[in-house]
Amino acid sequence: MKFLSVMLALTGLLTAPLSAADWLTEQPDASAFTLVGANSQARLYIDKEALPGVQRAAHNLVSDIAKVTGKTLLLGQQTQSEQLVIIGSLGHSAVLDRLIAEGKLDVSAIEGRWEAYQIKTLQQPLPGVKQALVIAGSDKRGAIYGVYSLSEAIGVSPWYWWADVPVKRKSSLYVQASAAMVDAPKVKYRGIFLNDEAPALTNWVKEKFGDYNAQFYVHVFELLLRLKANYMWPAMWNNAFADDDPSNALLADEMGIVMGTSHHEPMMRADKEWNRYGEGPWEYSTNRDNIYRFWQQGAQRHKQLESLFTLGMRGQEDEPMSEGENIGLLEQIVADQRQILSDTFTDDIRQVPQVWALYKEVQGFYERGMRVPDDVTLLWADDNFGNIRRLPTAEERKRSGGAGVYYHFDYVGGPRSYRWINTVPIAKIWEQMHLAWQYQADRIWIVNVGDLKPMELPTDFFLRMAWNPTAFSAATQAAFSKQWASQQFGPEYAADIARILDGYIRHNGRRKPEAVEADTYSILHYNEAGRVSTELKALAELNQQVEKALPPVYQDSYFQLVAYPLLATQAVFELNHNLALNRLHGKQGRVTTNDYANQVRYWFNRDQQLSGQYHQLADGRWKHMMSQPHIGYTYWRNPPANLMPVVSTYAPAAEPVADMGVAVQGSELSWPLNEPLGQDLALPDFTLYGQQQRYIEIFNKQLKPFTFNAATSAPWIRLSQTTGDVNQQQRIWVSIDWQGLSEGTHQGWVHVQGTGWGGARILVKASKTPQAVKGNFVEADGYISLQASDATIYGNHARAWWAPIPGHGYAGQSVSASAHADYVWQKDEPAPYLEFPLYLFSQGQFDLHLWLAPSLGFVPGRGLRLAVGLDDQVPQTLDILSDSSQQAWQQSVLDGLRKVTTRIHMTQAGQHKLRLYLRDPGVVLQKLIVDTGGLQPSYLGPPASLYIR
Amino acid sequence: MKFLSVMLALTGLLTAPLSAADWLTEQPDASAFTLVGANSQARLYIDKEALPGVQRAAHNLVSDIAKVTGKTLLLGQQTQSEQLVIIGSLGHSAVLDRLIAEGKLDVSAIEGRWEAYQIKTLQQPLPGVKQALVIAGSDKRGAIYGVYSLSEAIGVSPWYWWADVPVKRKSSLYVQASAAMVDAPKVKYRGIFLNDEAPALTNWVKEKFGDYNAQFYVHVFELLLRLKANYMWPAMWNNAFADDDPSNALLADEMGIVMGTSHHEPMMRADKEWNRYGEGPWEYSTNRDNIYRFWQQGAQRHKQLESLFTLGMRGQEDEPMSEGENIGLLEQIVADQRQILSDTFTDDIRQVPQVWALYKEVQGFYERGMRVPDDVTLLWADDNFGNIRRLPTAEERKRSGGAGVYYHFDYVGGPRSYRWINTVPIAKIWEQMHLAWQYQADRIWIVNVGDLKPMELPTDFFLRMAWNPTAFSAATQAAFSKQWASQQFGPEYAADIARILDGYIRHNGRRKPEAVEADTYSILHYNEAGRVSTELKALAELNQQVEKALPPVYQDSYFQLVAYPLLATQAVFELNHNLALNRLHGKQGRVTTNDYANQVRYWFNRDQQLSGQYHQLADGRWKHMMSQPHIGYTYWRNPPANLMPVVSTYAPAAEPVADMGVAVQGSELSWPLNEPLGQDLALPDFTLYGQQQRYIEIFNKQLKPFTFNAATSAPWIRLSQTTGDVNQQQRIWVSIDWQGLSEGTHQGWVHVQGTGWGGARILVKASKTPQAVKGNFVEADGYISLQASDATIYGNHARAWWAPIPGHGYAGQSVSASAHADYVWQKDEPAPYLEFPLYLFSQGQFDLHLWLAPSLGFVPGRGLRLAVGLDDQVPQTLDILSDSSQQAWQQSVLDGLRKVTTRIHMTQAGQHKLRLYLRDPGVVLQKLIVDTGGLQPSYLGPPASLYIR
Repeated sequence: MKFLSVMLALTGLLTAPLSAADWLTEQPDASAFTLVGANSQARLYIDKEALPGVQRAAHNLVSDIAKVTGKTLLLGQQTQSEQLVIIGSLGHSAVLDRLIAEGKLDVSAIEGRWEAYQIKTLQQPLPGVKQALVIAGSDKRGAIYGVYSLSEAIGVSPWYWWADVPVKRKSSLYVQASAAMVDAPKVKYRGIFLNDEAPALTNWVKEKFGDYNAQFYVHVFELLLRLKANYMWPAMWNNAFADDDPSNALLADEMGIVMGTSHHEPMMRADKEWNRYGEGPWEYSTNRDNIYRFWQQGAQRHKQLESLFTLGMRGQEDEPMSEGENIGLLEQIVADQRQILSDTFTDDIRQVPQVWALYKEVQGFYERGMRVPDDVTLLWADDNFGNIRRLPTAEERKRSGGAGVYYHFDYVGGPRSYRWINTVPIAKIWEQMHLAWQYQADRIWIVNVGDLKPMELPTDFFLRMAWNPTAFSAATQAAFSKQWASQQFGPEYAADIARILDGYIRHNGRRKPEAVEADTYSILHYNEAGRVSTELKALAELNQQVEKALPPVYQDSYFQLVAYPLLATQAVFELNHNLALNRLHGKQGRVTTNDYANQVRYWFNRDQQLSGQYHQLADGRWKHMMSQPHIGYTYWRNPPANLMPVVSTYAPAAEPVADMGVAVQGSELSWPLNEPLGQDLALPDFTLYGQQQRYIEIFNKQLKPFTFNAATSAPWIRLSQTTGDVNQQQRIWVSIDWQGLSEGTHQGWVHVQGTGWGGARILVKASKTPQAVKGNFVEADGYISLQASDATIYGNHARAWWAPIPGHGYAGQSVSASAHADYVWQKDEPAPYLEFPLYLFSQGQFDLHLWLAPSLGFVPGRGLRLAVGLDDQVPQTLDILSDSSQQAWQQSVLDGLRKVTTRIHMTQAGQHKLRLYLRDPGVVLQKLIVDTGGLQPSYLGPPASLYIR
Repeated sequence: MKFLSVMLALTGLLTAPLSAADWLTEQPDASAFTLVGANSQARLYIDKEALPGVQRAAHNLVSDIAKVTGKTLLLGQQTQSEQLVIIGSLGHSAVLDRLIAEGKLDVSAIEGRWEAYQIKTLQQPLPGVKQALVIAGSDKRGAIYGVYSLSEAIGVSPWYWWADVPVKRKSSLYVQASAAMVDAPKVKYRGIFLNDEAPALTNWVKEKFGDYNAQFYVHVFELLLRLKANYMWPAMWNNAFADDDPSNALLADEMGIVMGTSHHEPMMRADKEWNRYGEGPWEYSTNRDNIYRFWQQGAQRHKQLESLFTLGMRGQEDEPMSEGENIGLLEQIVADQRQILSDTFTDDIRQVPQVWALYKEVQGFYERGMRVPDDVTLLWADDNFGNIRRLPTAEERKRSGGAGVYYHFDYVGGPRSYRWINTVPIAKIWEQMHLAWQYQADRIWIVNVGDLKPMELPTDFFLRMAWNPTAFSAATQAAFSKQWASQQFGPEYAADIARILDGYIRHNGRRKPEAVEADTYSILHYNEAGRVSTELKALAELNQQVEKALPPVYQDSYFQLVAYPLLATQAVFELNHNLALNRLHGKQGRVTTNDYANQVRYWFNRDQQLSGQYHQLADGRWKHMMSQPHIGYTYWRNPPANLMPVVSTYAPAAEPVADMGVAVQGSELSWPLNEPLGQDLALPDFTLYGQQQRYIEIFNKQLKPFTFNAATSAPWIRLSQTTGDVNQQQRIWVSIDWQGLSEGTHQGWVHVQGTGWGGARILVKASKTPQAVKGNFVEADGYISLQASDATIYGNHARAWWAPIPGHGYAGQSVSASAHADYVWQKDEPAPYLEFPLYLFSQGQFDLHLWLAPSLGFVPGRGLRLAVGLDDQVPQTLDILSDSSQQAWQQSVLDGLRKVTTRIHMTQAGQHKLRLYLRDPGVVLQKLIVDTGGLQPSYLGPPASLYIR
């Protein structure tokens, strides 16, 4: 086939109600618009008076079509063409005016709207034109977005430049005659904040462009426009956008990007500009005149440019003001800033877009009563870790300036910076930004993307969702990674690639790589670190298959977008995993200690090798881009370089000797170290439905092999072997002969003898219970562990409902309490609930651990609560945020979880129903654990309990 | 001078009332007996019928005199000599009989006594004999001891063979005509147990003698006789004395050594003989006939030999019997054993010496009522760590068989074996064995000396004290090491050598090297590990001086007896000290981590090099003797070899970077690791009488140097420097400007900035109090620390008294509660007390920590108590052993201390008198600490508090 269904694969990505059928003909019928045909091609028409930004987009379209088809279409003021693409924005296109005037084009669907565009085929619209494809914008950006929509549709990824995504080559491009589409954004300002820019982005910029100049920004702006964004906070660490290169601001305005300055840089002036030009201290209380003048100059400079003015003031370098929370002073500052704006622009200050960022302590000013005029947009922020702190109340939603959200994919600060690769799952972004949309924080969505480069996927999702928040539901957001993979790499491997993307991001969402330490994942319990290692290894193997299968043209892009983040994630995990084993084996004095030290070195070097490979792609196209140090964090700040951890090193006796040690599953303790402590080695208790095999590990502390002998004190204790030779280590598996046991708790010993006198004695306990009743989750190994998504949902209604969010949380399955924005549960009102049928052999007061998303109480006066009910007991309301300490918050963002514990009273063993009642929306439940006495410390918690069918 | 005052230096060692003046003439007058003169020499006479053991001793005397003077005296039945030495034992010497009969010799002082001897010059005793020097024994050993007394007096150390102590050469030897001496032992059986014999002793024996045969034992027996011992338990691990070499038992009997078998080997049969010849199990309940016959053979074999029969039975290999504590069975066993003895020897079983060792669980049998006949000696034991468990009650003292003590200088067992070098201070041996003497456990003193070789000093002391327990008082025992050093190396360096000996033994007495671990001595508080390091370093320097000064002939001996144990002790300490620093620096991620790892390796190798040097002395004369593994203990059993500890290893970033860390004195915490923990760095509080300087340590975690800046929040905080360059680490000393401070507690901060954003903040607190009143120990740094020996003693009386024991305890100064054996304090009776005047700035309920010797309650029904009184409050009685747990005992023997804590109530600040009242004898107090809130963990406790004069 010569032509291709160019839009097909992208449907899911497109946020407008345009289906493939609207655009395409499988067989180009006579009526199809021929963009590039077998023997013909369209011309592109653009008015002379068209805005430069639109012209630039049109030129890019020509270039994109050429990349796809090899054909360079003519672009100009010539309409003489059988097939004509007409590009223009209303009021800036004589041709569009004429078509409208002649009744040939109806633009009522976009006219007067913000950034709307319309794409439509017209028959015989102009003399000599058989067919036209009109791309009309309600305004400049409307037209630009229309153009880039076509660009994307024919197979040019927005990331073609920024991630080397190859253009999909096609010989022909047809558009169905019936194609007709109208689209416009739902969030007004959609943008990114280039932040945390050194060393990675900055060194790359310096090498490629010399500085943060227009040659650099043109690529950023184009990316934004292709992603249908319109707003930006520029890099500001050691940079001053408008001052570094006077072309920067002009270029932004020309291309259609509304510039702002970051939340703490008021009045379109960069923080660094004060260093360069400011006189006196950055203290408004003592240096008002100089600062006032400084701001005046900012307003003046941007008088002709489309801008969104940040108001307010913080200390320099994004620190709180030294004045502290001086509300009076800040109110004066805002008043002065608005005076400047009104002096510079117009008396109708409402015409000048302004934003007040309620970031960090500034939110406190607001909560304590400080207000800004109604026309200023209130920019609420997350907690820097993706959890929105506050959304508009019903009252606030009436404000004319509306509200927005400042979100983070990257952050420099406590409890621990995350500045490297992507760590934010799509489901989490969706869940939080969906709330923002629901609570009408829809004026500005801006996200801190750090260095930009490694955040391609979440940035793409965030901006698409900003364009149309309703395009994604809890259910459909989970398909995004596959759709995105398909756009970048074609449909063939999209499912596998999505598995890899989802996999590494789920891992990083559990805990950011910067915060993963040797003791994060348990090497003792639930084989936790081992399971995570296996997960990542399986992904790495899949990655290798995909990498091998993908054509060479995809390799660079694939490495950047998929392979590198996965493999580097794995390297950081394995480095820490092996460090934990190195330390434990070192403590136990094992001969294997150095093997793990070598593994730590291997994974450290592996990480270096991977970033080296990244930097060498395409002759160094992305050199420096992965140079952000990420190994060796000890507190909030990143280490000055990736730092190899201190490892434990073992040296054997010069003359080989043998020296037995014995460890048991689930314990750091080992024989003989336990003897002086007076502590027994003991296997975790065996239960009928629990783990049926547990190991004793007999290890050598020295180089000479030895023979061990193992014996049991009772016949019901079974050993996989009773003697063997130990070189380095050897596991004996212990199991229970349940048939030989009566009901009740039994106790026995395994004795292990090896080198020298004495030996290890290991306690074995087995509790034989009756059979459990079917249809229940059953207690075993001292706990019941439940995935929220395994609940049965009852009582959902139109105003409140529990809903699963696939892809969310540690296990990629959470359940969210959702409700209408102003829903407040009324006492005695039936509430939707989750129900779990349980079967316990124990009775008593037990801890119930609830693991929830670390969401915040974003509605003043309403908490984040749910209610826990057991059987027919009255449900007990639980305030998830009852611990409001900084410490608890820090723990929650490090864990990516808020852990809450309550007590439940199982008055008797047997069957029970555990119910979780909806109280406040915003609660997202991941996991529940009933600790009946055997719960062991771990990061991910025990695996889900057995459900007996 | 041609002649020398040969006895002078030894007076202190000799236990008989023989002074130099009795023996010597400075100028040989006409009346002096000439042993070896300028031109003449004596003959030695011994009767033909003299016992072979006496003859052997006489031959050794000839050989000893030849070593000293180069002159070989004639020995035989010829009396024709102007100067004649007459050697004999009563009843076995015709010459002595004749002299007695002729009234020329009065032996009434020794006649009929056990092992007594008499040395006396006689004028013209026989025809042609101008002068005779008579050495007469009341019995065989009496004569032998007399001979070896002369040997020792002329300058032959008992250790000449076993420690290569050079004989002091002299050209002449004279004995004053008035010389007249009588001596006899106070303890009947005095001996050693060769135990713990592999790998060191056994491999040496195998290489030198092939086996534990008579060629080996002859040296052991001679040593024992020279030390005036008479009893021995032979090596038994893989040996059977009487079976390995049939000459062994015959030789012992001939030389005069009474053989026994160890506490768990009854009836003169070695444990290992059962393995060789026993039929059936070692279970008397099931295999009586075979075991009975086995024992009969033992009695029969030793029928003609002087033996001390061990009765009773334990399991094999020194384990409890598998029967458990079956008293009935054990009584049957003893009855059967006595039947065998009476069948073999005589109906009067009381003529056959027998001992029942009340070791470990066997003591329990006794305490629960089991008894053996009155003529059997009860051998009480220590707790294997030098603390006697039990001494005879007044009732038990009436038993005809009497009692003895089995003591340890070496032990294989829990909580931790000690099998290497000497760890038992003389003062401790004296204190415990003095009690044994006081409580009339005087029938047997036997000590486990392990491999024998490295225990020269304590063995010498133990056996000398066994000969005459009253020769040493609390005060004079402290001079022993100097006297001993003088005997081995001459008087010139004796004081220095004694300092070295006392120093290393005090160190090992604090904690045995086997039990020293990285965290034993605090690297954080009181500069503890640093002070110990300095102590040992000073001793090592002194050792080097002495070694250099000593003539070559002494070098081998000096290395064995002095240099090696000191330097190897130092190596073990420094290995652990540097391991602690390695771990701390590793945890803190310091660039210096590897320096300490290298130090650990250095000291590990140093230890190997020292034992290598020992093994190479005199062409390998002591090869294997120091091969006992002693580094790498993790529980009671020794490691299979000296094992290099696992160390922390650091690898810097490939491209040098700088990375600041900050630590403070007294804390493991360091910046920035403290930030995520939410803990402040803080210096210990400053007080007026406390430490006046404390440091902040600014360190580099990487290779590139950096500059730091430090500032204070208040002018009263003084810094030694406020900026500087840090290569590896740099200390800033913080002090307080007290003049600038008002009374009360003040708080401020030191801020340190170095690499990157942020920096460390260190809390500084200073409490200014009024001046303290003179004449008191003053509270500072949150405690008062008192040496018991700094107390003033009041109220001592004839029946009970406090007395200092120099050389005892951690600091070499303890005070002992002493009393008559059956003293029991009566309520309201005034008791002797120790008094400390204190000055406190604090008031409240404080912990008072008492550090006491780990002595046990050796008298049934009487505890180990003292009473604590504050000012005029009623003294509160404190039971030192109130915690009777195995755990508490283990801790006490590991620490060499029993730590007891009580509460005292200081109702107000100011002056107080703290008093410790005597209640039970046996209490030995070392140190007292009043914790007013600032006491930090350490091993040795804080240094003694300031006494204001």
